[in-house]
Amino acid sequence: MPDLREKGPGGLNLLTATELCRKLEGKQTTSVAIVQDCLARIAAREPDIRSWAYLDPETALRQARACDAEPRRSRLHGIPIGIKDIFDTYDMPTAYGSTIYKDHQPTADTAVVGMMRRAGMVILGKCRTTEFASPVPVGVRNPHDFTRSPGVSSSGSAAAVADYMIPLALGSQTGGSTILPAAFCGVVGYKASLTGLDRGGVRHLRPNLDTMGLFARSVADIAALRSVLCGVDPAPPVAEMRGIRIGICRTMNWKEARPESVDALESAARSLAAAGAKVHDVEMPAVFTDINQSFNVISGAEALRAMAAEARDHFPTLNQWIRDSLTAAKRVDRAQFDKAQFHVVQCQRAMAEVFAGCDAIITPSTAGEAVADVVSVSNSAFNRIWTLLHVPCVTIPAFTGPNGMPVGLQVVGPVGGDDRIIALSQGIADALK
Amino acid sequence: MPDLREKGPGGLNLLTATELCRKLEGKQTTSVAIVQDCLARIAAREPDIRSWAYLDPETALRQARACDAEPRRSRLHGIPIGIKDIFDTYDMPTAYGSTIYKDHQPTADTAVVGMMRRAGMVILGKCRTTEFASPVPVGVRNPHDFTRSPGVSSSGSAAAVADYMIPLALGSQTGGSTILPAAFCGVVGYKASLTGLDRGGVRHLRPNLDTMGLFARSVADIAALRSVLCGVDPAPPVAEMRGIRIGICRTMNWKEARPESVDALESAARSLAAAGAKVHDVEMPAVFTDINQSFNVISGAEALRAMAAEARDHFPTLNQWIRDSLTAAKRVDRAQFDKAQFHVVQCQRAMAEVFAGCDAIITPSTAGEAVADVVSVSNSAFNRIWTLLHVPCVTIPAFTGPNGMPVGLQVVGPVGGDDRIIALSQGIADALK
Repeated sequence: MPDLREKGPGGLNLLTATELCRKLEGKQTTSVAIVQDCLARIAAREPDIRSWAYLDPETALRQARACDAEPRRSRLHGIPIGIKDIFDTYDMPTAYGSTIYKDHQPTADTAVVGMMRRAGMVILGKCRTTEFASPVPVGVRNPHDFTRSPGVSSSGSAAAVADYMIPLALGSQTGGSTILPAAFCGVVGYKASLTGLDRGGVRHLRPNLDTMGLFARSVADIAALRSVLCGVDPAPPVAEMRGIRIGICRTMNWKEARPESVDALESAARSLAAAGAKVHDVEMPAVFTDINQSFNVISGAEALRAMAAEARDHFPTLNQWIRDSLTAAKRVDRAQFDKAQFHVVQCQRAMAEVFAGCDAIITPSTAGEAVADVVSVSNSAFNRIWTLLHVPCVTIPAFTGPNGMPVGLQVVGPVGGDDRIIALSQGIADALK
Repeated sequence: MPDLREKGPGGLNLLTATELCRKLEGKQTTSVAIVQDCLARIAAREPDIRSWAYLDPETALRQARACDAEPRRSRLHGIPIGIKDIFDTYDMPTAYGSTIYKDHQPTADTAVVGMMRRAGMVILGKCRTTEFASPVPVGVRNPHDFTRSPGVSSSGSAAAVADYMIPLALGSQTGGSTILPAAFCGVVGYKASLTGLDRGGVRHLRPNLDTMGLFARSVADIAALRSVLCGVDPAPPVAEMRGIRIGICRTMNWKEARPESVDALESAARSLAAAGAKVHDVEMPAVFTDINQSFNVISGAEALRAMAAEARDHFPTLNQWIRDSLTAAKRVDRAQFDKAQFHVVQCQRAMAEVFAGCDAIITPSTAGEAVADVVSVSNSAFNRIWTLLHVPCVTIPAFTGPNGMPVGLQVVGPVGGDDRIIALSQGIADALK
């Protein structure tokens, strides 16, 4: 895997948010200098990477100058972040990846974006998303290999962080849209518990699945950003693996895992055991059979409601995947929807029991390294289950595949245990180094 | 204070959600029987109380029958709840208290409403809200005295729970809209941390202030409902007050407190000290001066953005208070808004330091008992600060005013400490009995 740091101009943009904070706190740099280095990198690399939906350098620099002129508001004061273009910004257009909303200018920020502004962060620009966060690629490039998928749907957020254009990005996950692109692009991705990061003001697509996600180049950066968004101190990183109970979960989709993901999981299990963790296998409870079908029923029915206006007024402009999903969902009746919902409740209960016996689950982030296919719908088999269960997930880019592409390890925790699973992931990332 | 239980028909509707759960779990009753008793109470009392914006008995009973026919999905399976008509429901109209949205039928549930359905709860109907949750009363009656205010803006939710029409209700607070009506109507009210209960799918009015609120007739019911909405077990109630550090906070608005609120706070302090708590005075840090002005700047500017479409297309139909707020907000420039935001960040930090020295703050829920004025804007001086600070608040109906009306005690905790402050409020409520 070539070192992306050597491509294009490199300066402050090569550092993590945590490293930049230290420099800002020590008055060794300014927000303007950081933003300038990010903009230089973007100017050099964006023609290839294509990860931005909207970026106005002057808007970004104006924010940075304002940050430098005032006292620090939070740990992340002055740090730039990219926002997936599925989230509203009052000062930048928001198109949700759709031609229907081309040049659409929302009147208000999605709540988390407002929280970032209040914390003194610089909203650098909008990162490209697929159309309404559907799994159909839109031409964002994987910085490690342009012939391979960057993952969907938070493709722009993942690629921009991986390519050192920005230290942090906001994304979302309704199927696999955070963990998948983070793993394919080789960065840290965190999908919150369904309600683990505020969803106020989100333009919903599937309210029971639409989850916030964060991208960074270190787990510590994820902890810092989550802390700013929740207003609480982060849990201290777990430094000692001894006694930590780790469940290895191959899931019912194990047959879809390619050798690099199989090797990553086994290697991680060995390393964690060597570091003192109590590692044991965890079987997916029997009730999980057919969970993919329940996912499809819920996802389709919720999309039909959330996209009712677009489906009514703009159906022909929607991509084929969205049209097919909406058409299929029309055949789902209320009884099927209720049955699927109840099935999920049973699975959530069964998973809570699994977590009574372990502190975290480790499982593949993806079927394997980024596929050499930049047009097809990608495989979110190792992500959809966790989205549906509402549990927090972190992908750590600790491994490499046969083609030199990044391979992630996914750490999963119980619903609501976000702080703990991030703290634990810091320890796991260290143990895998 | 007359016992409302003696008015109108009484049956299962007189019990708390916790008591009803026990009966349902023991198969001593059914969801249909509970809903029928609630509907009988509503039929008898609604002509006087006027707390419902939409209620279709058959829709409610159909849900109850479905609950009775399937295995229990959660602790609150089969329990009815009323939803403030500011929140979307896919099967009932949602008007946000506005003639603009008369008969408006959303296509999807606000996320928390969907969570309640998935937990097997019965969405009984929509409780009346003021117009866009503004502080202008709309004729909902305080069940204890029709000549007195029920509080705004979640008036219908508070009155319906107080009058034993429903055990639980969902509301919201942007100024004082949960704690104020709960205190005036003599029920338990809980305003979450800003992001303490999921805000997905909420029709925002002021994204930095719009907070979820819950109403019940016991703190244990609040804990149970929050647990269902967050997917985590509730913190165990704090049974022992010994060693608990309680700060008495009179706030900078103390001169507005009437004798009954002064007495309530002092009496609570004595009772808690007698129960072993470490009670001490807490001064509002100096930085809080002018916080009311910052509240107004933020509230106005955010409303201007969130209500841009209504202000543009329907300005003359909005009530005078909303028109005046929007007009005043137009005079706020970006620099004033930024200054107000920064002021709030400083206050939030100062408050975090206060909470380093105490486990909870006690403070008045309102200036006094419900005022004998059913048309004027009510005084949210003891609520706006906490909303702006994003901290969780619980009002406990432990006292009585000179006219026999309920008087609450407000318990406030640090941002994100919702579970803990609810658990502590259970102990405080017991100590005040």
